[in-house]
Amino acid sequence: MAVRVGVLGATGAVGQRLIELLDPHPDFEIAALTASDSSAGKQYRDVAKWRVDSPIPEDVAGMTVSATDPDEVSDDVDLIFSSLPSSVGAAVEPDFCEQGYVVSSNSSNARMADDVPLVIPEVNGDHLDLLEVQRDERGWDGALVKNPNCSTITFVPTLAALAEYGLETVHVATIQAVSGAGYDGVSSMEIIDNVIPYIGGEEEKLETESRKLLGSFDGASLELDDVEVGASCNRVPTIDGHLENIFVETTEDISPEEAAEAMRAYPSLSLRSSPDQLIEVFDAPDRPQPRLDRHVGNGMAIAAGGIRESTFGLQYNCLAHNTIRGAAGASVLNGELLLENGYL
Amino acid sequence: MAVRVGVLGATGAVGQRLIELLDPHPDFEIAALTASDSSAGKQYRDVAKWRVDSPIPEDVAGMTVSATDPDEVSDDVDLIFSSLPSSVGAAVEPDFCEQGYVVSSNSSNARMADDVPLVIPEVNGDHLDLLEVQRDERGWDGALVKNPNCSTITFVPTLAALAEYGLETVHVATIQAVSGAGYDGVSSMEIIDNVIPYIGGEEEKLETESRKLLGSFDGASLELDDVEVGASCNRVPTIDGHLENIFVETTEDISPEEAAEAMRAYPSLSLRSSPDQLIEVFDAPDRPQPRLDRHVGNGMAIAAGGIRESTFGLQYNCLAHNTIRGAAGASVLNGELLLENGYL
Amino acid sequence: MAVRVGVLGATGAVGQRLIELLDPHPDFEIAALTASDSSAGKQYRDVAKWRVDSPIPEDVAGMTVSATDPDEVSDDVDLIFSSLPSSVGAAVEPDFCEQGYVVSSNSSNARMADDVPLVIPEVNGDHLDLLEVQRDERGWDGALVKNPNCSTITFVPTLAALAEYGLETVHVATIQAVSGAGYDGVSSMEIIDNVIPYIGGEEEKLETESRKLLGSFDGASLELDDVEVGASCNRVPTIDGHLENIFVETTEDISPEEAAEAMRAYPSLSLRSSPDQLIEVFDAPDRPQPRLDRHVGNGMAIAAGGIRESTFGLQYNCLAHNTIRGAAGASVLNGELLLENGYL
Amino acid sequence: MAVRVGVLGATGAVGQRLIELLDPHPDFEIAALTASDSSAGKQYRDVAKWRVDSPIPEDVAGMTVSATDPDEVSDDVDLIFSSLPSSVGAAVEPDFCEQGYVVSSNSSNARMADDVPLVIPEVNGDHLDLLEVQRDERGWDGALVKNPNCSTITFVPTLAALAEYGLETVHVATIQAVSGAGYDGVSSMEIIDNVIPYIGGEEEKLETESRKLLGSFDGASLELDDVEVGASCNRVPTIDGHLENIFVETTEDISPEEAAEAMRAYPSLSLRSSPDQLIEVFDAPDRPQPRLDRHVGNGMAIAAGGIRESTFGLQYNCLAHNTIRGAAGASVLNGELLLENGYL
Repeated sequence: MAVRVGVLGATGAVGQRLIELLDPHPDFEIAALTASDSSAGKQYRDVAKWRVDSPIPEDVAGMTVSATDPDEVSDDVDLIFSSLPSSVGAAVEPDFCEQGYVVSSNSSNARMADDVPLVIPEVNGDHLDLLEVQRDERGWDGALVKNPNCSTITFVPTLAALAEYGLETVHVATIQAVSGAGYDGVSSMEIIDNVIPYIGGEEEKLETESRKLLGSFDGASLELDDVEVGASCNRVPTIDGHLENIFVETTEDISPEEAAEAMRAYPSLSLRSSPDQLIEVFDAPDRPQPRLDRHVGNGMAIAAGGIRESTFGLQYNCLAHNTIRGAAGASVLNGELLLENGYL
Repeated sequence: MAVRVGVLGATGAVGQRLIELLDPHPDFEIAALTASDSSAGKQYRDVAKWRVDSPIPEDVAGMTVSATDPDEVSDDVDLIFSSLPSSVGAAVEPDFCEQGYVVSSNSSNARMADDVPLVIPEVNGDHLDLLEVQRDERGWDGALVKNPNCSTITFVPTLAALAEYGLETVHVATIQAVSGAGYDGVSSMEIIDNVIPYIGGEEEKLETESRKLLGSFDGASLELDDVEVGASCNRVPTIDGHLENIFVETTEDISPEEAAEAMRAYPSLSLRSSPDQLIEVFDAPDRPQPRLDRHVGNGMAIAAGGIRESTFGLQYNCLAHNTIRGAAGASVLNGELLLENGYL
Repeated sequence: MAVRVGVLGATGAVGQRLIELLDPHPDFEIAALTASDSSAGKQYRDVAKWRVDSPIPEDVAGMTVSATDPDEVSDDVDLIFSSLPSSVGAAVEPDFCEQGYVVSSNSSNARMADDVPLVIPEVNGDHLDLLEVQRDERGWDGALVKNPNCSTITFVPTLAALAEYGLETVHVATIQAVSGAGYDGVSSMEIIDNVIPYIGGEEEKLETESRKLLGSFDGASLELDDVEVGASCNRVPTIDGHLENIFVETTEDISPEEAAEAMRAYPSLSLRSSPDQLIEVFDAPDRPQPRLDRHVGNGMAIAAGGIRESTFGLQYNCLAHNTIRGAAGASVLNGELLLENGYL
Repeated sequence: MAVRVGVLGATGAVGQRLIELLDPHPDFEIAALTASDSSAGKQYRDVAKWRVDSPIPEDVAGMTVSATDPDEVSDDVDLIFSSLPSSVGAAVEPDFCEQGYVVSSNSSNARMADDVPLVIPEVNGDHLDLLEVQRDERGWDGALVKNPNCSTITFVPTLAALAEYGLETVHVATIQAVSGAGYDGVSSMEIIDNVIPYIGGEEEKLETESRKLLGSFDGASLELDDVEVGASCNRVPTIDGHLENIFVETTEDISPEEAAEAMRAYPSLSLRSSPDQLIEVFDAPDRPQPRLDRHVGNGMAIAAGGIRESTFGLQYNCLAHNTIRGAAGASVLNGELLLENGYL
């Protein structure tokens, strides 16, 4: 029997991707959609400016949108996916958790909180049990789990694959797609024939979230990894797919061949949305490229390539679909992990 | 009286920019244009697919193009600007030098040769006197001076400005415009809604040319600087303007304010094409941007911004117009330096 | 002595262009800037997200912005340029006129009103005297003159040039730049790798405004021209420059050569912002193109080309810079005409 | 048992799409691939710069490419798909037909020849029997059938749907994607932030091919339809999907509702690649759009929308995926029709 799920912020770019992924999902059934107060009480088709390139699912199109408030969502919803602006998320997610909802959230608020698991299932699924600590401390019946920022998700799996060589420093330059900023986030006048070398708060997210994801959880508390990460972030005129240039120094020497092998061997999971191969490594030096490779593993895999010796150690490029693996798909995957681990 | 100049490779993207800059130049007079054999004997307007957004100069339009061969160029030409494909440049530039022509070349061949000065006038104008060594060794009446690659020119002036703090390591990720690859270099099907994280040979150019430019010349030989540079290069759908993300570690600590001050204080020259301010530093964190800022200093200045503390030291972004300061303008500036220093 | 001018809606995309054109203007002096209430009382540099690629003029940057209300604008301002959203324009422009201000407006409200001159000086400058009728009817000391929509301005001068052959029908398909929708008008997610074949209300503007511009004014009332115009409008990912495909049927046969000659011979004016040549006709069949040709006549000329026999009559393409000739420059030109004709 | 097929020009953009469509096709089996002489004898994976966003099929990747010459293609190949440059097609297609091969060609040569069927199966499948005339006249054992130009295919089905109202005149402005020009057809420097209002020979193709497709075949000869078509063609920076603005005048009045109904009711076929619904009509006035709608019917349907009264009659927009329905898919569909009608 399918778990009844709700989507907070259902009309936004990530909300639309969530609906696209959840509608055909065998384990989940969309039972509630919320948006801003001005949309509440209206049909989804009338308030969502649907822009995913598959058509809006018929059954969802006719659903009535409610306000983003736990009192407006039916009690028989068991799992909430949240893709709210972070200020809204910070305000309402705790209310949902208090009222017993389990929340898998893509919003950036609370990601670095001590008792909030920040999870990429294939990388640190064991951190999920930080929820026990969270429930103890906060007295919640519900629970709050986060997935990281889209640009963080893109490179952390490759670092996890190289971790056995001893990660010391990572320099990362991101080249990010406009969809990462939401539907109206980047105006066309800003970005056509242009690059914006700044995304507010993004660099810090890569630098801190990566250390939490690679950190260790001993059942009681979570310690950040020691790796030092420095990031520089850029927006370019691509629709989907964040590409990243990585320079990594490790304690043990690692050849490009060893790095490729470690990435290819890094295990995926058997969750429904996990790709068969988590990291697809390309041999052609000019791949991966956003338009050609963002759909590897149905948008849930990481593409890597251009692995070569650098002046300093190793360098390579990686890519992920920012609104699938980097956002909506990441939340769904965390929902699947919650289900598998008995939190629902 | 104006120096009579010739342009090798006059029909290409950089050749067109050379003509745009040389036509109104008070010290230079265009007296010869060369292109491939198939264009020889025809009028320039009929063989150049003119794509600069100012109109083709009338007097140049009617000039007859000759083959790229010193025997086809009039003896009363004193200075040659070369923007040939590197394999062609390697084959014919020495012939021109042997026959007494002074060549200011943008072509990538021979840039790292021991006796060929690689010059950004504001950074290492003193290296020009390596020409004495060159003439001694090669027995040339002419001379060959090179400007660096467009992506090298973009960041080296900023490093020169910071050199007093002791440069140790530089990580650079470039985000380059399509014009850097020439008129037909990047097909639209490759780059619309896409990024190509690979430009053949480009990374090595940044890594080696920068050390030559920052190196020291003692009158007899040139020693590369010790700075370690690692580069990662990307092509994006912008027309003009290479943007670069820089991470730099120095022996002495340097604050963002000190870095900005050092860049602003770095002197320009009084050559005709030198900008008043060599490095324009922006305070807004999201600048410089290619479309908005590539024309600073008429395309001859370097724009810098986003200067901030990094996890490792300092980080910032810089930008230059790749076909003006990064190519045609760089060659013209070297021509002006040759003139000022009595080599013509 | 310069006329003191004010700009309503000074922070928008057209407002910025107005400032760029007015700041160096010898006959006008910027004396007042207005914007929405939330910006009132603040310095212009702090409320305008300046995106023109020349720097913000220093003296304008420090000006204090006032609310868009005639009581907030100094009495010694003689001429108002308005680039307000049409609903705001409809509400406040009459107030300014009533209080004695002469308003040259780019806003779309009231363009088709019987007593409001809609003027392209080179095409129907004589319509300006409709202001006498306007003042009589409305009892205004001030006056309201409009320039047409950016896509209307692009093709009407070419029709005016062909009018002697007897215009019967015109089919026009527009291919419009994103700047026509204002700074935030078109999101990048909507338009990258895409075309939007719809611009609300735009087609009607081309169809009706063109007939008013080509109409005749007998000193008392204005009669629309009989030409039948059908339009189809599209938005594409270009920054500036509206390109239009025109099919025109005339009562008298007209050859492509005659059409080119008629366009080239169509007179410009000697107003300060008028281009020397109003319509630049290209012989190359693939011109004009937005990026290459939008700056003809400093953005104030119309570019035409591709003139050829059609299945039905004549066809050709035309292009104008939509935020210069099509908006800010059009308003400034109307301001110059008001000055020349003694309305200031 | 599958028909063994060959692909002429297999490395180009359309050739790659043909392989993508033919590889999983239940009725066809790829048995031969040809390309230019310089590629002959090499493995397909080494000579095709594969740019379709699904991976290159493994079995095809290892096939040896042969020269484009009937003597180099195995006799047991029954059906040839051709996507050659038209000059090459004109030279070699007749050789293949003479040697008994049935050729379904996308190349533009010979499309208007009296005895060559130009076919869109859903529109004029009955024209296929012109092959009897062809074989009689030319003495071929093989046969040559053509599909129209990509921009012709896009609008002709909508005209066919409206034909019962009596087509008189059609004005069409096309807004075409870069893939229509082939992999290297449009350089990025030409098209970023730009529109090119010219595609050599394209307008004539729309004007003549449409009349042949809508013409009538009486079993002996083919008569062109009387409709007058005038076209204006433009290239814009989209990857795939040709959008067209149509103005149509009919002898009988037709309302937008009737036009939508006629398009929706226009029958598809039961060929394997036919879409269920041939013409998908959108109600939203801003659809269809290339990026959102080019995949309707797996790229084999026509999308239409924006149907409204025009100054002159009716106007609307239509869209098709130019390398699927407009090229490779069109050829495959003609192959399926040849199979169904017993020509193989």
